[in-house]
Amino acid sequence: MNVQMIQKGTIWGVGLGPGDPDLMSVRADRLLRNASHVAYFRKAGRSGQARRILDGMLRPDVTEIAMEYPVTTEIPLSDPRYNALLSAFYEDSAAHLRSLSDAGQEVVVVSEGDPFFYGSFMHLYTRLKDDCPVHVVPAITGMSAAWTATGLPITWGDDVLTVLMGTLPHDALVAQMAASDALVIMKIGRNIEKVREALRAAGRYDAAWLIEHAAMPDQSVQKLSEAGDRVTPYFSIIVVHGNGRRP
Amino acid sequence: MNVQMIQKGTIWGVGLGPGDPDLMSVRADRLLRNASHVAYFRKAGRSGQARRILDGMLRPDVTEIAMEYPVTTEIPLSDPRYNALLSAFYEDSAAHLRSLSDAGQEVVVVSEGDPFFYGSFMHLYTRLKDDCPVHVVPAITGMSAAWTATGLPITWGDDVLTVLMGTLPHDALVAQMAASDALVIMKIGRNIEKVREALRAAGRYDAAWLIEHAAMPDQSVQKLSEAGDRVTPYFSIIVVHGNGRRP
Ligand SMILES: C[S@@+](CC[C@H](N)C(=O)[O-])C[C@H]1O[C@@H](n2cnc3c(N)ncnc32)[C@H](O)[C@@H]1O
Ligand SMILES: C[S@@+](CC[C@H](N)C(=O)[O-])C[C@H]1O[C@@H](n2cnc3c(N)ncnc32)[C@H](O)[C@@H]1O
Repeated sequence: MNVQMIQKGTIWGVGLGPGDPDLMSVRADRLLRNASHVAYFRKAGRSGQARRILDGMLRPDVTEIAMEYPVTTEIPLSDPRYNALLSAFYEDSAAHLRSLSDAGQEVVVVSEGDPFFYGSFMHLYTRLKDDCPVHVVPAITGMSAAWTATGLPITWGDDVLTVLMGTLPHDALVAQMAASDALVIMKIGRNIEKVREALRAAGRYDAAWLIEHAAMPDQSVQKLSEAGDRVTPYFSIIVVHGNGRRP
Repeated sequence: MNVQMIQKGTIWGVGLGPGDPDLMSVRADRLLRNASHVAYFRKAGRSGQARRILDGMLRPDVTEIAMEYPVTTEIPLSDPRYNALLSAFYEDSAAHLRSLSDAGQEVVVVSEGDPFFYGSFMHLYTRLKDDCPVHVVPAITGMSAAWTATGLPITWGDDVLTVLMGTLPHDALVAQMAASDALVIMKIGRNIEKVREALRAAGRYDAAWLIEHAAMPDQSVQKLSEAGDRVTPYFSIIVVHGNGRRP
């Protein structure tokens, strides 16, 4: 009998930080330059932001695993089929990574920002963590790059900071915005008008900043009130700074 | 006449991340290894956490600038003299850095975590930014390391995340804790009993985790309810995970 025991390969969930490769952690940089297998999410037909950050870093003989989100524009977010489609996609992606781990391969799965902060990697993590060794490497969040880009600290003393998704309903947004000192609003996209309305209703509109592509080559920073009616890109964050105690 | 125009040196506000030098950004690592002048805060008579992270990294001929917090145990936080003392300390520290910049020296001022997120560096920044070139390098926050250490993602879907300081009054803590999905509580120290009470009153106590020294050699992670009556160290964070939508 010829039984081989293969040790399972580690799946690394590595955060890439906000966009500038120089803002990756030393550990992420090292893991990526040595990686034999690198996996990332992207929209079908797009090269993807995560992959762009890695340009020029990977081994020439690396195996890349592009996990392409299913096209979902025909199905509205509220439709239960949307969830089923996404869930099947994460199952398939996890199964592929699991088979690599079972074959003894290490795989570095990259995420934009910090993997455990509203990240897609979390959906793979919950499906893999009981079967394979999974290690997560934290990273600089998009919001840290966004407030740094404004040139103003986000929180002082005992300021309360609340992080909100633009996908929340109007009333929830207003209540949270009015009850917090500092604000970070992410996942803005098509919700920009709702977010503006909520900021106005909470009396925070004039203090809001819009940061697009924080720490990326085409970074832009402006007061939200001066941003006009623009359509904001996917990588957009709105920030309202706290004004707490400062000696 | 012998007039020399000296170009002002840049003051770098560099975040060190949560504690493990491997979690510093590539940019921070490079700036620190090349630095001729490195400044950090510490308590008088202590070596300090920020300085510890730098062990073995600095040039042999580096000039170190230890900015020692004035001893304040005799004056309660609420006393206006406490603020005056701290303010004078930041003024003096800023004046020293300004004189180095005026003499053409670059100085790397390090902070634990991200400099613009409840950081002491912010008090130097506001005093220097109009006089010298100041650049800020964002970093991984202590809270990212804390939630990573729990092995559970902090936020899903459109979860609301609220960051609270243990220094807030009981009622404010309870109201915020009850109104948010995910929670991060920092600056716990002597406020631990108040924070426990508030978590209980908000119905979040059983879901809370206590992380001490996240990403440091003596990291500890446990459910808060199992932590006993321990006195928590300065580097402690309490986390309550969100439970939002997940396909
Ligand atoms: C699915 S969440 C991922 C967050 C990420 N894990 C992090 O730690 O920042 C995507 C949202 O993050 C925000 N975002 C992340 N990085 C950004 C950047 N560099 N500039 C602007 N927005 C960013 C945007 O609001 C975007 O809609
Ligand atoms: C003055 S604030 C500085 C926060 C820092 N700028 C950051 O980005 O995390 C100090 C508080 O941060 C928290 N903290 C920072 N780093 C930590 C770590 N590695 N482990 C546990 N707590 C940490 C503690 O709650 C501490 O009381």
